[in-house]
Amino acid sequence: MDTRSVDLAVQEMLEVAFQNKIETAWDRLNSQQPQCGFGELGLCCRNCTQGPCRIDPFGDGPRKGVCGADADTLVARNLARSIVAGTASHSGHSKHLAHVLKKWADGKAPDYPVKDERKLLAVAQRHGIEVEGKEIKTIARLVAEVALEDFSERETPIAFANRTVTKSRAELWNKFGINPIGIDSIIAEMMHRTTLGVDADANNLLLGSIAAGIADYAGCHMGTDLSDILFGTPTPVFSEMNMGVLDPKQVNVALHGHNPVLSDLLVQVSREMREEAKMAGATGINLVGICCTGSEVLMRHGVPSCTHSVSQELPILTGILDAMVVDYQCVYPSITTLAGCYSTKVITTMSMAKIPGAIHIEIHEEDAWEKGKEILRLAIAAFKERAGRSFHVPQCKEKVIAGFSTEAIVAALAKLNQEEPLQPLIDNIVNGNIQGICLFAGCNNVKVRQDENYIIMAKELAKRNVLLLATGCGAGSLGRLGFMNGEATKAYAGEGMKAVLSAIGEANGLEGPLPPVLHLGSCVDNSRAVDIAVAIAEKLGVDTDMLPVVASAPEYKTEKAFSIGTYAVALGFPTHLGMVPPVVGSKQVVKTLTKDIRGITGGYLIVETNPLEAAKKLFLAIQERRADLGLSTRLW
Amino acid sequence: MDTRSVDLAVQEMLEVAFQNKIETAWDRLNSQQPQCGFGELGLCCRNCTQGPCRIDPFGDGPRKGVCGADADTLVARNLARSIVAGTASHSGHSKHLAHVLKKWADGKAPDYPVKDERKLLAVAQRHGIEVEGKEIKTIARLVAEVALEDFSERETPIAFANRTVTKSRAELWNKFGINPIGIDSIIAEMMHRTTLGVDADANNLLLGSIAAGIADYAGCHMGTDLSDILFGTPTPVFSEMNMGVLDPKQVNVALHGHNPVLSDLLVQVSREMREEAKMAGATGINLVGICCTGSEVLMRHGVPSCTHSVSQELPILTGILDAMVVDYQCVYPSITTLAGCYSTKVITTMSMAKIPGAIHIEIHEEDAWEKGKEILRLAIAAFKERAGRSFHVPQCKEKVIAGFSTEAIVAALAKLNQEEPLQPLIDNIVNGNIQGICLFAGCNNVKVRQDENYIIMAKELAKRNVLLLATGCGAGSLGRLGFMNGEATKAYAGEGMKAVLSAIGEANGLEGPLPPVLHLGSCVDNSRAVDIAVAIAEKLGVDTDMLPVVASAPEYKTEKAFSIGTYAVALGFPTHLGMVPPVVGSKQVVKTLTKDIRGITGGYLIVETNPLEAAKKLFLAIQERRADLGLSTRLW
Ligand code: SF4
Ligand code: SF4
Ligand code: FES
Ligand code: FES
Ligand SMILES: [Fe+2]
Ligand SMILES: [Fe+2]
Repeated sequence: MDTRSVDLAVQEMLEVAFQNKIETAWDRLNSQQPQCGFGELGLCCRNCTQGPCRIDPFGDGPRKGVCGADADTLVARNLARSIVAGTASHSGHSKHLAHVLKKWADGKAPDYPVKDERKLLAVAQRHGIEVEGKEIKTIARLVAEVALEDFSERETPIAFANRTVTKSRAELWNKFGINPIGIDSIIAEMMHRTTLGVDADANNLLLGSIAAGIADYAGCHMGTDLSDILFGTPTPVFSEMNMGVLDPKQVNVALHGHNPVLSDLLVQVSREMREEAKMAGATGINLVGICCTGSEVLMRHGVPSCTHSVSQELPILTGILDAMVVDYQCVYPSITTLAGCYSTKVITTMSMAKIPGAIHIEIHEEDAWEKGKEILRLAIAAFKERAGRSFHVPQCKEKVIAGFSTEAIVAALAKLNQEEPLQPLIDNIVNGNIQGICLFAGCNNVKVRQDENYIIMAKELAKRNVLLLATGCGAGSLGRLGFMNGEATKAYAGEGMKAVLSAIGEANGLEGPLPPVLHLGSCVDNSRAVDIAVAIAEKLGVDTDMLPVVASAPEYKTEKAFSIGTYAVALGFPTHLGMVPPVVGSKQVVKTLTKDIRGITGGYLIVETNPLEAAKKLFLAIQERRADLGLSTRLW
Repeated sequence: MDTRSVDLAVQEMLEVAFQNKIETAWDRLNSQQPQCGFGELGLCCRNCTQGPCRIDPFGDGPRKGVCGADADTLVARNLARSIVAGTASHSGHSKHLAHVLKKWADGKAPDYPVKDERKLLAVAQRHGIEVEGKEIKTIARLVAEVALEDFSERETPIAFANRTVTKSRAELWNKFGINPIGIDSIIAEMMHRTTLGVDADANNLLLGSIAAGIADYAGCHMGTDLSDILFGTPTPVFSEMNMGVLDPKQVNVALHGHNPVLSDLLVQVSREMREEAKMAGATGINLVGICCTGSEVLMRHGVPSCTHSVSQELPILTGILDAMVVDYQCVYPSITTLAGCYSTKVITTMSMAKIPGAIHIEIHEEDAWEKGKEILRLAIAAFKERAGRSFHVPQCKEKVIAGFSTEAIVAALAKLNQEEPLQPLIDNIVNGNIQGICLFAGCNNVKVRQDENYIIMAKELAKRNVLLLATGCGAGSLGRLGFMNGEATKAYAGEGMKAVLSAIGEANGLEGPLPPVLHLGSCVDNSRAVDIAVAIAEKLGVDTDMLPVVASAPEYKTEKAFSIGTYAVALGFPTHLGMVPPVVGSKQVVKTLTKDIRGITGGYLIVETNPLEAAKKLFLAIQERRADLGLSTRLW
């Protein structure tokens, strides 16, 4: 059994890497062993130059840092900084989108017209913007301004968080003082509170960190809203996943990173460059996705996803990847070294995210189209360069159905009940055909056998009629392993869920049932799952912490995953982490995040590294919620 | 020779600590040995859970983190996060002041009236606010709003930075893309750029970090401006420094932390509580300062400074410190443990800065006065509690002259030349009586014999006619060791400087000369030194990087010191660091910060741990600048 990945394509390419003595993330993890125990427990501090300070978890060594900070303070401060780095990343992505929308409204970004006017109007109305008699450009500017206002200190709590949850949830956040009034301002506040000699109270720091998590939720929701407005709200689409989507006869271009401002543009530009590719001897330009920007163009254009997260280096080793075009987040800087041994051109596009060894072609909204052509021409040149060279492409790929925006799910349900589209879903939750909902989010992590936790948990939960949603590289994992098509429903879904998914599939003219795992999009699109939960909660007249809805990050890696997990807890969801977070050095922080917080938000963390046990605990959490709602319950 | 501190009072109290088996910062440093070499070199990363990753500086171990990030990326990312934490701290302090000013203008903070209307008008006019025919409250609101606008993204670069430097400096910042358009927004941007897989280019990260340093400069300047407006612009004042200022017969209250919003209020409230103290058997209430908030109330009210930074725990051991009232930054959480063995009440006052074991009395602008009385009553109660108990107060204290705001310095010079007050200073720089100016900033650090670097460097530079300015705990160090009175000028100043300081002293009716080290205030008041440099530069028609002005942080400790050093370099000053920063793991980062940056901003870092060598290098830097200006030069 390959201990590194479940994915056969990955196993195959790791063998190629081994043969060619190419260092991958797995090799670099090995060379890092043994990793620092203090860091793993959160018990190392470098917040002033009197450090680095370490606290001995077993008690015979130092109990405090030089300034007197103890284990609880160190762990809470380190966690706070990870969370705000995640908040800064998602919200930076959305701030970028807001600027693009505003530039288009001001006539300065011709390549980025509003594509989904309906979504623009819906978001405008949600924010109390009067749309009657207004031009689309005016409404677009007003929406962009409302979004940008969320970044600085406002008079009232952040709009994109407070206007997209239940009233009682917003009130609860106010009551406990965790409802931030600005995204960048809570980031700055937590960086201040975590420097030497400011906040030494672990619980106080954790409440501030939860506020930063809520700011992240606003950043994510804004990212989804603005991407749908600019590039279209996804509707169900058929595509494929895994490295088998690469085609030696085409110019293969991997779109990697996060923001559709780059990837969506290149999808459109590529259509105009087919002839140029043909003149170079290629049958066409084959765009493939890696990580979240791959999810964005899969959801909106059916662009196939090539691979995800820890295996992002491996497509280069096929020898036929002509370009890897990146913007920011989760882009391993190792790719330029690997590409050096192949003909792959690594192209960075953002001034704030450069990689030594990459070709830098900066994308500005004002002249994006031309730059996009420049990028694809480099790929075509690389295609010509590799003519005649050997290559190795794993013939693994799976069919996927993606594109499940909240709107698309509601539309699909509407085929069963036009007036009350949520009613079929609620009825089937009440009658137990669907026991509850589990959202899989986050990444892969090279410390865990790639995809293994996702697969085992998905099978165990689907079998017991838990409807599965997935985003980001979690969706990538389940998609690559065949969990996102009708066959998977037949193979893995319990009878009750199979019936529901088949009924919806049929009513919508699909040959088979909906898949057991619905691909909601990228990491920011976790906001789509929250929209679904909030819609159900409002229909049932309860708050989100009463629903049989749970979340899981079985193989998380990034600081972004920390902030997503934080807002899942802030929204009231039992949230599973498949790896031990760097907080075990503080009993206080562990107790607060896994127990006490439940008394505040209703949500709590479940840390469980065994996927089978994790599935059981999430299933039990769902049963607890069903019982509280007076619904039928079932044993494991 | 006591290896821990030059300060005799500190030596004495460390002996008391030893006798009573009380653990101090020095003990905790010992128990931390050996400290992690990777952390000291900046070669440890915990920015995702695939870490902690470490890079072997000697080359035989791992060269890259799991994601492929190399030494340059790790060092630059860690430095960036330290700098933005410093920016967040200073600007958080100033944001607090801006809210207080706005609340007063809106009639919601009666205890915080504008005290210096002249300064309000000057700051208003600097920001293009029309003052004619406007009420003070209206102007105050407008100034507060201009300040608050600097935190979010603006159309143009940050006002409090760009309107307080030479035009050419602002243009240079624009040219190199390091002129940020928002304080909180550059903090969020750098936290985004330093997460997994975003910016891997060390120089690109360093340019972003310098932008964050410029944002810190704006935060500091705002802090100085708004404190002067609310609490008065300092004028020369006589006082004393060191633990001998404690008086067993009075209720001794230490004001510790940073923001005058707390300390200045308590100074005023204490005047109203003398009778209550007397009723408790005390002769009065004796407020003493620790760290920066101590500098604020020293500058404005002559409140004596008790001690600073690493020795902040020791006043508790005297047995007569009745209360230590803190707000935020540099407050060691160890103080509550120490206070447990004595009658000292540790009182925290800010919701975002709690310390387990402290009494929390939250100060809100709306009802500050009452809360201030509540705090002082606790101190009076503690005074009664300690009646008859033994105590030990070191009889060490030195006279100081402080209160050198830029306005006060100009006013003092005006006595020599009414129309052109700067001219006497410039003339004496030209004629060499004053070879140049050195600003001492930053803290003490328990890894360096407290005050030793400051004293040796001050003597060597004063002797060679370098005028010394000092802020924060650097000023504390020099004040405690007697460098801030007329006798010190006679003892340490070179002939040329002695003549100038005597002339100014005389012209201003002081019995003796000005001190060789001018106390400019707290850490944020480093902006006063920049004002002086900018005024001289504009008078000479040059930019700040041409002046014989240098900066030094001989014993720095906090992330704030990182950001102050960064903006000193951004302003063009040769900047000495008396301890090796955690960047030596990257030759690239060291080269950029100590050499290449000079070609961009004109400023650069000088890392030199030997104080004598450091003084030589700064003196040579001054001579280089004198030569470039065509002025006479002198050998060491
Ligand atoms: S903040 Fe405290 S624990 Fe952290 S490095 Fe500084 S002295 Fe050590
Ligand atoms: S960001 Fe890279 S170097 Fe840092 S911990 Fe993660 S894998 Fe290691
Ligand atoms: S988006 Fe794939 S690992 Fe972060
Ligand atoms: S203000 Fe004194 S150490 Fe920071
Ligand atoms: Fe992602
Ligand atoms: Fe300070």
